[in-house]
Amino acid sequence: MHTSIATVSLSGSLTEKLAAAARAGFGGVEIFENDLLASPLTPEEVRARCADLGLSIDLYQPLRDVEAVRDDVFARNLRRARHKFALMRRLGADTVLVCSSVSPDAVDDDSLAIRQLAQLADTAQEFGIKVAYEALAWGRHVNTYDHAWRIVEAAGHPALGVCLDSFHILSRGSAPEDLAGIADIPGEKIFFLQLADAPLLAMDVLQWSRHYRCFPGQGGFDLVGLLRRVLAAGYRGPLSLEVFNDVFRQADAGSTAVDAHRSLLLLREAAGAGVLPPAVVPTGIAFAELLTPDAEPVTALLTALGFTRAARHRGKPVDLWQRGEARILVNTAATARRDGIRLAAIGLESPDPAGAARRAEALLAPVLPRRRGPEDVPLDAVAAPDGTELFFCAPASASTAATASASAAAFAPASDVPELPDWRADFAELPDAPATSATRIDHLALTQPWHHFDEATLFHRGVLGLTAEESVDLADPYGLLRSRAVADADGSVRIALSVGAAPSDDTVHAQHIALATDDVVAAARCFREAGGRLLPVPANYYDDLAARYEFADGELETYRELGILYDRDAHGAFRHWYTETVGRVFFELVQRDPGYQGYGAVNAPVRLAVQHARR
Amino acid sequence: MHTSIATVSLSGSLTEKLAAAARAGFGGVEIFENDLLASPLTPEEVRARCADLGLSIDLYQPLRDVEAVRDDVFARNLRRARHKFALMRRLGADTVLVCSSVSPDAVDDDSLAIRQLAQLADTAQEFGIKVAYEALAWGRHVNTYDHAWRIVEAAGHPALGVCLDSFHILSRGSAPEDLAGIADIPGEKIFFLQLADAPLLAMDVLQWSRHYRCFPGQGGFDLVGLLRRVLAAGYRGPLSLEVFNDVFRQADAGSTAVDAHRSLLLLREAAGAGVLPPAVVPTGIAFAELLTPDAEPVTALLTALGFTRAARHRGKPVDLWQRGEARILVNTAATARRDGIRLAAIGLESPDPAGAARRAEALLAPVLPRRRGPEDVPLDAVAAPDGTELFFCAPASASTAATASASAAAFAPASDVPELPDWRADFAELPDAPATSATRIDHLALTQPWHHFDEATLFHRGVLGLTAEESVDLADPYGLLRSRAVADADGSVRIALSVGAAPSDDTVHAQHIALATDDVVAAARCFREAGGRLLPVPANYYDDLAARYEFADGELETYRELGILYDRDAHGAFRHWYTETVGRVFFELVQRDPGYQGYGAVNAPVRLAVQHARR
Repeated sequence: MHTSIATVSLSGSLTEKLAAAARAGFGGVEIFENDLLASPLTPEEVRARCADLGLSIDLYQPLRDVEAVRDDVFARNLRRARHKFALMRRLGADTVLVCSSVSPDAVDDDSLAIRQLAQLADTAQEFGIKVAYEALAWGRHVNTYDHAWRIVEAAGHPALGVCLDSFHILSRGSAPEDLAGIADIPGEKIFFLQLADAPLLAMDVLQWSRHYRCFPGQGGFDLVGLLRRVLAAGYRGPLSLEVFNDVFRQADAGSTAVDAHRSLLLLREAAGAGVLPPAVVPTGIAFAELLTPDAEPVTALLTALGFTRAARHRGKPVDLWQRGEARILVNTAATARRDGIRLAAIGLESPDPAGAARRAEALLAPVLPRRRGPEDVPLDAVAAPDGTELFFCAPASASTAATASASAAAFAPASDVPELPDWRADFAELPDAPATSATRIDHLALTQPWHHFDEATLFHRGVLGLTAEESVDLADPYGLLRSRAVADADGSVRIALSVGAAPSDDTVHAQHIALATDDVVAAARCFREAGGRLLPVPANYYDDLAARYEFADGELETYRELGILYDRDAHGAFRHWYTETVGRVFFELVQRDPGYQGYGAVNAPVRLAVQHARR
Repeated sequence: MHTSIATVSLSGSLTEKLAAAARAGFGGVEIFENDLLASPLTPEEVRARCADLGLSIDLYQPLRDVEAVRDDVFARNLRRARHKFALMRRLGADTVLVCSSVSPDAVDDDSLAIRQLAQLADTAQEFGIKVAYEALAWGRHVNTYDHAWRIVEAAGHPALGVCLDSFHILSRGSAPEDLAGIADIPGEKIFFLQLADAPLLAMDVLQWSRHYRCFPGQGGFDLVGLLRRVLAAGYRGPLSLEVFNDVFRQADAGSTAVDAHRSLLLLREAAGAGVLPPAVVPTGIAFAELLTPDAEPVTALLTALGFTRAARHRGKPVDLWQRGEARILVNTAATARRDGIRLAAIGLESPDPAGAARRAEALLAPVLPRRRGPEDVPLDAVAAPDGTELFFCAPASASTAATASASAAAFAPASDVPELPDWRADFAELPDAPATSATRIDHLALTQPWHHFDEATLFHRGVLGLTAEESVDLADPYGLLRSRAVADADGSVRIALSVGAAPSDDTVHAQHIALATDDVVAAARCFREAGGRLLPVPANYYDDLAARYEFADGELETYRELGILYDRDAHGAFRHWYTETVGRVFFELVQRDPGYQGYGAVNAPVRLAVQHARR
């Protein structure tokens, strides 16, 4: 089905919006009147620009406060409408959105609304234009889709139909039985379908609509259920996004449009109206790759953490550092010093790397070259919205996992998936690498660009097939952070996405790699003895722990001595500590009781305060 | 009365918060537990730091989920409380805030709550501590102040009183009769008073409280009425601000603390509990001063606008440009080129300049030196929150206003206020200045720093005595702007304050000076003929005007030709045009029908789009 987006959903000038919509693969646009008014292009030029870009103009919107008024007022409204219809002819748009009136002039008289809307449709028809009548959730007298439909049905005019808008329908808390009436509307009388999601906020509906809408799958509405009903009614028109959102108004139009189109493709798939390559859920984290202009600070930290340099890339200055099942690539190629040390790529173990990449590509993720160098193993890779490179890798073989301390085994081709290239074949094993104790990557924490938090969550859910947990607010000394984890069913892949309170916040909020341990205390002591620097934790934190929990003799003193943080939920405890930050990266060691599902979010304010203070 | 602020209201580390509170003149603080936990200072060190800064620790908060639970749970809660009471001894805090329970463990049994709170108060008393019990608006069983008071009254314990919190009381939409019960609480049983305002939002009360509170006078609550009642009940404890706000969490603690303390001083004055020098409302705009590294672009623009250079400062490179009653100072002193051209100072005509400055100083505005040079006329001046210098000037004499075109008269001392120094005495009149046609400054538009919009509004209201109009949202192509005008009763002084959608937005959103004209068309033609460049307005804008209004023959064509914008309200029309921007400043010419009260906000999106495109 044809996909479309209202220009109001994107930032910038009209030409910027059109270019972004086309680049993201939309088939059409709704022209929002204010965007046209502010544009130096004539309607004819806009029409030509859209044609050049391969965009149809699916809707012109909105025409407000037309119906159910005194005849002299209606005559003025009709005059206004004629002007707009003439404009639409120049623009080449054949459907106009008419919102139910919010004017104090409007009276509660359906028969008057019916008569005047029919008259409006007559006039529209002269111009070859169709009128799509939409019930605003805050319309003065008409504020439900079924009321709008009763009026349209009674008018019985071929140029008059309804526009269904998911926000206006679902923001009223419509129960499934309230939506049953959609089946009664003949598909051909649904002239347009506007889709927007929204977080479930208990707030004034007008403010909610104007500032907090979001793309499908990023809020709390059952858009899949609604779309299924509208399609079952026989609607075959565009699926169009109309999203008023304060963040999208500021964000780069290009990436917002990609996010928008991805959301619509996922919605279409979920409603059974579009086919995408199926999701291939990653089964583990093969590696994390750090880019650094200088290996020393990173390797010193890895060494103290018990990693050893296990292999070296055959063609590039990239070393593989390993401890048990945790693998870190340290890449010193072509990085400017000002970029510092950062987490640049993640290897995800995938049962079908090519399939995973096909889905990502179909969902608009930039595909990266399969080979970096002529001798490199071909690997499927795409870029996540934050620019992190995701490599889809063949999983380690069962035997590798069972003998984690024998690093030699880690470089044998994975025997159970012999047809897949192994990324480790690019690396030459170093003969003298000592055995290491077991660990694995518990989770990765990635700071997202300010405007793209919801996009990142949807990407990891929709593209990678991970499940998103609830979003939590974390108090940083200089603003609130939002954080949301995505994970697979058994916790083999966990990624904590976070975003700062303001665009400037990304300097402190580094990325981090959390390693699992069975003994967080021993791990801390080893790290310290190896010269590592633990993030210090204020004594006051431990006084509070003492007030909140009872500990075994000496336990709390040990935590206090080492800087170990503690959390507990109904299922178990979580003990964790942090290293100092190098560049934009730090490590965490976590000991997770079976059943504990969180990430120690309750301790984040203390950790952030200390990190700020030590900057 | 003693003023206090909760550390959670300010950003940064605990030491930054304490320093900011002290610098802004607060007498005390509430220590928010999380701020202490994240601090490397011991409680004793915090106590000493506060003492050094002259701050009392008026409250430790919060102790949550204590009362109305099974006895074994209560025993654990009491153990937790003991830990906190011991901590408070170290801190030197003698009052603890206990919030009504939100725990699922709590039962709806007042007698249990009474017994357990009395037991808690017994324990507190051992430590010399008083318990202030507060009803959270979302408390599980206790969520109104009168319910909390009934429990406290029944407990009858000397160490147990209530904490009244304006947010929790007024967010429930309490009618005046609901507040009558405050008079029944003996003043000495009100252990604490927390004050916060909030915009009147229809939203979930917990979200509203955690993210949208603001300082008194910046929201919609009747805090004056509440404070009067609490004082009438006999309360003599601290007036303390507890404001959870996403913006303040990010803003500089120093200026937030000043804003906070100013709001509290104004509230105290309004409730009749504190005396400030009375407001002296300005009666006109004496001048606007532009700072520029290079006079040429500014003087070219002023010349095209019909200004002439009328006088020159006796000691500094400052020229006075004048047209009618509009006076612009062009200052080329000591400005770095990178600062560009900006509006740096405003002269406000005041019937009592010294009195105006006294009030500003009492309300924490930085006072500027009265004399810049040894020969300068002494002038009272303060800095507004955005850094704009405000000079309080003797008004022009009546005769000056009547003979606006006779520039010579403008430099005579104002005859009706002979005792006041005239700022114009610093300027030597240029003998050959030609007469100019009449105009005056209609309004000034000032872009505010991102985090300080509400502060700016309160400053102009509270310090200058201007009246604030409703805040409006303006759609910019790259985000929503907020704009709010402040004005005196007859519109002699109008200032439009605005703020961008994000911290980075202040580059485009220049300041501007709007000049009044009786004939906007003639003014545009003159400007153009004099070589001035009008901001072009898209043709589509005029097509829309044609749809919305009927114009006299040729009228719309003239507007279209010249780029004149049009608005209309119930009282009249507003016609206006803009110049191109020089540096960070542009001019507007406005023709305001009598009665029209706005600023053409409906046209702002078009103007902003054009300005963005021409950047």
